[in-house]
Amino acid sequence: MDGRTTKSRTKQILDMNAFDASADLENRRGEVKRRLDNAGALSVLFYREPIEMVSAKGAWMHAANGDHYLDLYNNVPSVGHSHPRVVDAVSRQMARLNIHSRYLNSVVDDYLERLKQRLPEQLANIALTCTGSEANDLALRVAETVTGERGVIVTETAYHGNTSLTTAISPSALKKDKPPENVVAVPAPSARNYGEAIEAGFAEAISKAIKTLRSRGYGLSSCICDSIFSSDGVFADPAGFLKPVVKMVRSVGGLYIADEVQPGFARTGETFWGFERHGIEPDMVTMGKPMGNGFPMAGLAARPDHLEWFAATVGYFNTFGGNPVAAAAGAAVLDVIEDENLQAHADDVGRHLRTLLAKLSSQDTRVGTPRGAGLFVGLDLVADGDRSKPDPELATRVINGLKEERVLIGAAGPYGHTLKIRPPLCLKREEVDIFIDRLNTVMQRV
Amino acid sequence: MDGRTTKSRTKQILDMNAFDASADLENRRGEVKRRLDNAGALSVLFYREPIEMVSAKGAWMHAANGDHYLDLYNNVPSVGHSHPRVVDAVSRQMARLNIHSRYLNSVVDDYLERLKQRLPEQLANIALTCTGSEANDLALRVAETVTGERGVIVTETAYHGNTSLTTAISPSALKKDKPPENVVAVPAPSARNYGEAIEAGFAEAISKAIKTLRSRGYGLSSCICDSIFSSDGVFADPAGFLKPVVKMVRSVGGLYIADEVQPGFARTGETFWGFERHGIEPDMVTMGKPMGNGFPMAGLAARPDHLEWFAATVGYFNTFGGNPVAAAAGAAVLDVIEDENLQAHADDVGRHLRTLLAKLSSQDTRVGTPRGAGLFVGLDLVADGDRSKPDPELATRVINGLKEERVLIGAAGPYGHTLKIRPPLCLKREEVDIFIDRLNTVMQRV
Repeated sequence: MDGRTTKSRTKQILDMNAFDASADLENRRGEVKRRLDNAGALSVLFYREPIEMVSAKGAWMHAANGDHYLDLYNNVPSVGHSHPRVVDAVSRQMARLNIHSRYLNSVVDDYLERLKQRLPEQLANIALTCTGSEANDLALRVAETVTGERGVIVTETAYHGNTSLTTAISPSALKKDKPPENVVAVPAPSARNYGEAIEAGFAEAISKAIKTLRSRGYGLSSCICDSIFSSDGVFADPAGFLKPVVKMVRSVGGLYIADEVQPGFARTGETFWGFERHGIEPDMVTMGKPMGNGFPMAGLAARPDHLEWFAATVGYFNTFGGNPVAAAAGAAVLDVIEDENLQAHADDVGRHLRTLLAKLSSQDTRVGTPRGAGLFVGLDLVADGDRSKPDPELATRVINGLKEERVLIGAAGPYGHTLKIRPPLCLKREEVDIFIDRLNTVMQRV
Repeated sequence: MDGRTTKSRTKQILDMNAFDASADLENRRGEVKRRLDNAGALSVLFYREPIEMVSAKGAWMHAANGDHYLDLYNNVPSVGHSHPRVVDAVSRQMARLNIHSRYLNSVVDDYLERLKQRLPEQLANIALTCTGSEANDLALRVAETVTGERGVIVTETAYHGNTSLTTAISPSALKKDKPPENVVAVPAPSARNYGEAIEAGFAEAISKAIKTLRSRGYGLSSCICDSIFSSDGVFADPAGFLKPVVKMVRSVGGLYIADEVQPGFARTGETFWGFERHGIEPDMVTMGKPMGNGFPMAGLAARPDHLEWFAATVGYFNTFGGNPVAAAAGAAVLDVIEDENLQAHADDVGRHLRTLLAKLSSQDTRVGTPRGAGLFVGLDLVADGDRSKPDPELATRVINGLKEERVLIGAAGPYGHTLKIRPPLCLKREEVDIFIDRLNTVMQRV
């Protein structure tokens, strides 16, 4: 795939359901004008007429004009918007102590120990950060120190963060530049890219990427994948396709980093982490978004010897990272996941969702076969009768049509034709039915 | 100054009052052992026997063993530990809505507008991030895009963050490596470095740094300074010494970035931002630590045209940045600063503190002349009778002696011989007197 194609595709996703200040001049008034005046070019409002939200509960968001939106988009408030147990935990701890990690505090270590129980035994150290970007930035540097190499392999529409280093390995964030030459992007593990032999095809692509890096003078430092390939279009099956990748990466001395910022914390239903579905043990795991249900927190789990090596070269300290309030939020999230059985729930409701979407797909030739795991689902919209032809314009119409029906949803993938469905995990079966009803209405209209 | 000297000096600061796991094996038990088992080599505990903190209020922190510590160290809980108005604001907003900035929300824009009123008019756009590191990382990249150049000037013991990019411009964080060749570090604006002609000397050093960059093939992208030079040892006077720097940086097409992560939000007393004391208008301002009194939030204020330029090259989005809970925390901090007159208070109490420290200095030849602004004060500890000789060992004994007297304090500067005094801004005059009493006790003992 040449650079030009990738570039224009990327542009499409970014514009998919975004407010465009230059095109939508008539909307530059009121709250929209305020936001543009305040945040300027880094504003990232959704929809041609952005929504002003005032409150949210469970899987519903409430707009200033009184509209109620069913939320199929937001994976950060993962145990449910405004969950009272998380609110209580944060409020109580904030009133008691909110301080950096240079003093001891048992709330922090209780949380770290609970988190470690969820992770592979060898990843016995956790560095708490504030954002997934910071966690991935740190993971890449640890890998560089441990391997002494700089080559990185990512997927072609990957997103791993907003820092300088993580932006450079995020093809989906680059509007003009290509990734630097020490970064090679491989096509995501999809049937579109590899046919039925996804596992073999993806492994072959990684093998070629290693050779490409070598030809450019770079050894392999790390291969980093979002275990659910969210921005690539959501690819979960066949479970196990990451196994040969991990083996191959290690065979040339590289490290495999599982980016669990999106799939982690029970979303994929069958397993707590996305990588577990593939039966692999990563060399590092990064996590973020749903970790504190919206409280800014993230982390890196790594091997103690790897962190020792890194710590010998630079001093690393994260002022807000690992404060007791974050730990309290994180612990409350684990409590809710456990007490409300959200992992099994995500599995059950996700299957229900995919069953109903499959029915729609069998009735509407513009709708692809749903894929994904748990409550992380991708659904392609294609040219009528030709599943090989992505239809991003249709996706845009569906997203905006769903907005009119008061459903929040987004798009993903290199063509922007994949509906990305990742609601709060508390979404009920009845709420899935409401979504399907509204989606049917929209599909009849568009 | 050769690389070796800088290296060993840096090592000193890092070790100043840090727990050393290899040296303090007998302390690897209980809560300390738990922390080391959980966080490993990236643990950054203070003191040979780390303190377990359980709660804090105002300027006091309370340990698990019942001890009460007077806090002269922590500048993040800036309006006071566990301030009820910040706790209330966060609790209420969290129970209502905590979501990213892709929907409109008036809490966020109300906050941005209040913040903008505090900033130079031309810096009309604010990008909210989660950490000062993210804000500085973004600022450096905006400067690169705007100038088309990569050269950066910093001070020689600067600290600007923990991401890959900000670590590279933070000499104080580098244990082995030197900064990359596009980064030049100049001696901080101190009397030790430049004698009485600080303004002229510092300007001359910046001029030389520009030439050094040019000789290495780099044009100037940005010069970034912490306006209070905290990690360099706290340098505030003579006010105005940054003026020729800003002029010179602009004359070669570079941008001047004011890192207000530490001095900002009323700490320096006379002015709300540290740069205002110097009568300059930076091209960008970054902020963080005290902004949410411990709620993870930070930001970058920039010119709209600069952000437009940057946004044309990469997509930038910060998931947790600018959420309504952060905005509520930030607004509550501004409320408290205004309603409790904390800026004037910091000025008044800071003067009282420096007056008493000056008295100590006149009585004890091991104590330098206090310097700083508002409640950001530096105090050198030197060889008895010879102020030209830094005494970091004495500083270590004083810091540990103060710990025994239940006072929290830290060190800074290239030699680690500067006591860094930056308490919560609510510190009372009577609490200053308690500190001075305890410091006198310690100075008689060490």
